[in-house]
Amino acid sequence: MIKVGVIGGTGYTGIELLRLLSNHPNVEIVAITSRTKAGTAVSDLFPNLRGHVNLQFIKPNLAQLAQECDVVLFATPHGVAMEMVPELIARNTRVIDLSADFRLSDPTVWERWYGHPHTAPNLLTEAVYGLPEINREAIRQAQLIACPGCYPTTVQLGFLPLLEQGLVDPNHLIADAKSGVSGAGRKAAIATLLCEASENFKAYSVSGHRHHPEIVQGLSRISKSAIHLTFVPHLTPMIRGIHATLYAQLQKEIDLQSLYEQRYAKSPFVDVLPPKSHPETRSVRGTNMCRLAIHRPSVEDNTIVILSVTDNLVRGASGQAIQNMNLMFNLKETSGLNDIAIIP
Amino acid sequence: MIKVGVIGGTGYTGIELLRLLSNHPNVEIVAITSRTKAGTAVSDLFPNLRGHVNLQFIKPNLAQLAQECDVVLFATPHGVAMEMVPELIARNTRVIDLSADFRLSDPTVWERWYGHPHTAPNLLTEAVYGLPEINREAIRQAQLIACPGCYPTTVQLGFLPLLEQGLVDPNHLIADAKSGVSGAGRKAAIATLLCEASENFKAYSVSGHRHHPEIVQGLSRISKSAIHLTFVPHLTPMIRGIHATLYAQLQKEIDLQSLYEQRYAKSPFVDVLPPKSHPETRSVRGTNMCRLAIHRPSVEDNTIVILSVTDNLVRGASGQAIQNMNLMFNLKETSGLNDIAIIP
Amino acid sequence: MIKVGVIGGTGYTGIELLRLLSNHPNVEIVAITSRTKAGTAVSDLFPNLRGHVNLQFIKPNLAQLAQECDVVLFATPHGVAMEMVPELIARNTRVIDLSADFRLSDPTVWERWYGHPHTAPNLLTEAVYGLPEINREAIRQAQLIACPGCYPTTVQLGFLPLLEQGLVDPNHLIADAKSGVSGAGRKAAIATLLCEASENFKAYSVSGHRHHPEIVQGLSRISKSAIHLTFVPHLTPMIRGIHATLYAQLQKEIDLQSLYEQRYAKSPFVDVLPPKSHPETRSVRGTNMCRLAIHRPSVEDNTIVILSVTDNLVRGASGQAIQNMNLMFNLKETSGLNDIAIIP
Amino acid sequence: MIKVGVIGGTGYTGIELLRLLSNHPNVEIVAITSRTKAGTAVSDLFPNLRGHVNLQFIKPNLAQLAQECDVVLFATPHGVAMEMVPELIARNTRVIDLSADFRLSDPTVWERWYGHPHTAPNLLTEAVYGLPEINREAIRQAQLIACPGCYPTTVQLGFLPLLEQGLVDPNHLIADAKSGVSGAGRKAAIATLLCEASENFKAYSVSGHRHHPEIVQGLSRISKSAIHLTFVPHLTPMIRGIHATLYAQLQKEIDLQSLYEQRYAKSPFVDVLPPKSHPETRSVRGTNMCRLAIHRPSVEDNTIVILSVTDNLVRGASGQAIQNMNLMFNLKETSGLNDIAIIP
Repeated sequence: MIKVGVIGGTGYTGIELLRLLSNHPNVEIVAITSRTKAGTAVSDLFPNLRGHVNLQFIKPNLAQLAQECDVVLFATPHGVAMEMVPELIARNTRVIDLSADFRLSDPTVWERWYGHPHTAPNLLTEAVYGLPEINREAIRQAQLIACPGCYPTTVQLGFLPLLEQGLVDPNHLIADAKSGVSGAGRKAAIATLLCEASENFKAYSVSGHRHHPEIVQGLSRISKSAIHLTFVPHLTPMIRGIHATLYAQLQKEIDLQSLYEQRYAKSPFVDVLPPKSHPETRSVRGTNMCRLAIHRPSVEDNTIVILSVTDNLVRGASGQAIQNMNLMFNLKETSGLNDIAIIP
Repeated sequence: MIKVGVIGGTGYTGIELLRLLSNHPNVEIVAITSRTKAGTAVSDLFPNLRGHVNLQFIKPNLAQLAQECDVVLFATPHGVAMEMVPELIARNTRVIDLSADFRLSDPTVWERWYGHPHTAPNLLTEAVYGLPEINREAIRQAQLIACPGCYPTTVQLGFLPLLEQGLVDPNHLIADAKSGVSGAGRKAAIATLLCEASENFKAYSVSGHRHHPEIVQGLSRISKSAIHLTFVPHLTPMIRGIHATLYAQLQKEIDLQSLYEQRYAKSPFVDVLPPKSHPETRSVRGTNMCRLAIHRPSVEDNTIVILSVTDNLVRGASGQAIQNMNLMFNLKETSGLNDIAIIP
Repeated sequence: MIKVGVIGGTGYTGIELLRLLSNHPNVEIVAITSRTKAGTAVSDLFPNLRGHVNLQFIKPNLAQLAQECDVVLFATPHGVAMEMVPELIARNTRVIDLSADFRLSDPTVWERWYGHPHTAPNLLTEAVYGLPEINREAIRQAQLIACPGCYPTTVQLGFLPLLEQGLVDPNHLIADAKSGVSGAGRKAAIATLLCEASENFKAYSVSGHRHHPEIVQGLSRISKSAIHLTFVPHLTPMIRGIHATLYAQLQKEIDLQSLYEQRYAKSPFVDVLPPKSHPETRSVRGTNMCRLAIHRPSVEDNTIVILSVTDNLVRGASGQAIQNMNLMFNLKETSGLNDIAIIP
Repeated sequence: MIKVGVIGGTGYTGIELLRLLSNHPNVEIVAITSRTKAGTAVSDLFPNLRGHVNLQFIKPNLAQLAQECDVVLFATPHGVAMEMVPELIARNTRVIDLSADFRLSDPTVWERWYGHPHTAPNLLTEAVYGLPEINREAIRQAQLIACPGCYPTTVQLGFLPLLEQGLVDPNHLIADAKSGVSGAGRKAAIATLLCEASENFKAYSVSGHRHHPEIVQGLSRISKSAIHLTFVPHLTPMIRGIHATLYAQLQKEIDLQSLYEQRYAKSPFVDVLPPKSHPETRSVRGTNMCRLAIHRPSVEDNTIVILSVTDNLVRGASGQAIQNMNLMFNLKETSGLNDIAIIP
């Protein structure tokens, strides 16, 4: 059994890690930390875990975690992991960080978007970007994984086959993305109250969103060239799910359906739907799957439309972290991730 | 492996059976029928099942089903099972009926509420009412199980310890029940459109609901006396879940918390919450659990309030059917039913 | 034109007052206060008011308000009005308080439920309880109105004709009430996030809710005797609306439908639906109407069921305040309150 | 008073017409027709209209309607108005058609998208396209108005100032549009059940939607040139509202904010928000307003993003019909359309 510690268990990615890890056949959860809830039983805070998780939250103790855990997962707000990861790495404990701290390889870009200097810049080059469909082999060997954000995962998996093959104009990419409200996290705020976010739809951060530089970094690496992306996120009145509608200008005719199916033939968590499909976010709810569909609305025009859906808390966070963990520990990539989306 | 056939796979209880059965470690689904969708791949209709269920819907053939299946589950509208079950029973195939056809033991009551005569009245006495917390031993031996309705399950589990012990006035029971919209099934109708049922709350069928006689029959058996129940169902703007708020007049002082905890100590799918709790429907979403809490708002008054929550499609239908199946085939009662509710 | 000031304009009852007052034909809004938002244009905070309300929030100045306003409305958290009202009353400015400060006539009850002493107890007897269907004449003359809470309004209008006539057992009243989330107000909190309150249903405060003593006080006055009420509030996943399901034991046979229709014949904001109706909360959304239906599920039993629906922010707060204001200033009772509920 | 008849009053645009017309100061509703509900009181079907509309549905009688009405509004499925309008026009009754029948000026395009020939092609040239911001003067004189669709209204108002001035590349326009479920109408269907459409997000009709040719026709007229538009509609889990996110390639630098503000300075139902705004659909719910915001995410790039929101049933249908009617009868353009959006 892999011994797993979770840092920051009271947010939505934390509880989702607990849900998935507690049913994982090869995992033992040895510690779950929270500064604010130390001493509280996990199942008192999250009654869905009654009978499944019999731990209390504890205060984080790095030396003890390093000793007891094979791997430590961070489900913390940005800025926390960078303070704690160096000691864990130094003690040879592997780390999977679900936060933004190690996603951007350039510390000046990090500082510009997050407003303060990066305190562990030397680890940025060591961290492996945990998108298995791109970095599967590097992930197996990694000491430190930077798990991709929810928007970046959904957008990159959609554009990936096109940009790898240089089939579309990299200077005119558009990602119109719609997210459920859980992307904003489990924190007291007016904007995400049911009364504010229900029966309502809006764009936000059109002038700049923190996931933009991460997506640009990822797509540039994939295309091995500079790219330009217009990224417009929207808040949609539901709990879970991201739907990215991607627009690109095709530069070369090719069988796109076959391209996608072949690219993802060995990826258990990418499902290319039949032509003319419209993937629904609910079809991936609670699961680690990304479902894709490729459209070319007008044959007279070279604009193509890719539809990509994920569950932002699973494929966009906790599920992908476990997918990474499975690879790091030579488990089956799908281990513990076989849930079927609940419909309706 | 138990070979299972499902009759009527295109409704919400049908798809839920497929989701649960396809992850059940001891089950092989051998046939799934639908008259209207015969020839269609299950995963074309329900994309969440892509990669999990690789069957096509077929037209029902009783002889073949009897030959191939150890047990046949009916997820059909009322009136269908009563036509098909006799042949299956005659051929020694066990049957679990999720519909209303075999729940009421008196065929005249059935006719009054469903508007046409019962065509298999002789099986009504043979059918075992599939509420395991009452009939666990009879279920193990049964050839034919009549699975309880969603409201009856939630209400009976809430009142059960009180009525068994004769602690409350049986003539003044009130069940104020609130159901998610999926209780109305997957059928084209105006009343359950999102535009009609969202941002709205209402009672319905206050003058008489088909689940009323089933609940009365169950509570009367439990209390071994006539009972009188006022039952008011409401439609609540969400997909899944039933919350029953139960009112009764206590006739004898007793430690109710202990009573409930002891009564359900050996029931893996009834969870008695600590005193002063308020169970949430989402804490059981997608699971077979019923969570209960007992309140006595005023010590000067003998009115007690029991809160009981279930997922209407799992504990109120498909999950409970599998719980029955597990008992019938000497499997662990929880086999295939270990999912944790997804929160948020 | 009546000159109106609003204290505390940034909550849900405040914005609702602005919406209703700005379309009121006899009203001029002269001031809207907020300590935290002073200097901000109202329409910057609430874009729906762009082009309708061209005021900025200002800090409250009682002397100036008393001079400029015919009436001041308080849409503040409890504890605020009791500090400011005495000066306004002393300066002969009339006051309508939407908060809880002047609802309970006994200051010791107030202190028990709100946790600190009442600072203006001498005004408690002067304040008129602003439920027009009971106190219409007193309201016309009042200097200080205590507007009823949302639950108390919905429950009292439902029980009123029965208790006035002594037709039901006053010792066994039950109010099972379901509220939309806006009842919790516009404040940052985890429990009312969309991700917590959507797709979920639960009871809360079953052991005691602050509206309980207010309802008991009101029902006791109506019945001219002590009453006992079991009150169970629930949170339902929608923005607006209260649905109260009321249970009582009939002690005397009477034509209940006629009773209700006659009692409310001259009440423009109580609508008694035809027999066997099920009022929907959406049918009163955004309006000041209370719709009622009377049921007797079983003729063999004396339990009757009253269904009562209101919009908690209009009839339960801001609309009722304006109904009171109309009476106080000899306007038509319905002035400014003619909106039709938006369906769907 | 203008005497108004409504054909087809049982759908969502019909009920919305009744809500708006019954509070219109210059209107008398003289007839409301429905073949299926003839004889039923309007307020029995729509309880929100109790006390506001005291009519029964009647079967349509064109001669009588022509005699009694100054104007007849069609809120019918496509294909109905084209059969009835010619007689009304021949009898000199003015007509406002909310359906698609007279929107496309080329009958061959109509036939291609709606599957059968147009039966009144000679009226297609006479019909005035009822988008007041483009055709205000023609509308005043019109006998027959073809009211724009909901998507076409929202998209055209967003692109209008840019295309009029030839500022963007007309060959690379993208409209990523999100609609509430009420756009699908009030008809029994599985896809728009709460259980299917809630907690879910999906694109639909990416390969071709009936509103596409209407938008293309409109934008081509505005730009006085051929245009190419990629149009992707999505279904969002809410009742009302359209959010169109529009992408275009700027060809000439200009102060876009001023351009929009000046273009719409005299349009009471277009509100250009301050720079960097994100209009919310709820800010226009129940109203005839279209709110717009202009963004240029990256100064290094010429992609601009226009956000445009409307209420699909008001600005996208019934409200715009009344705006047209006001113009036709020399009323104030805003008459009867002053409602403020309800928030929350």
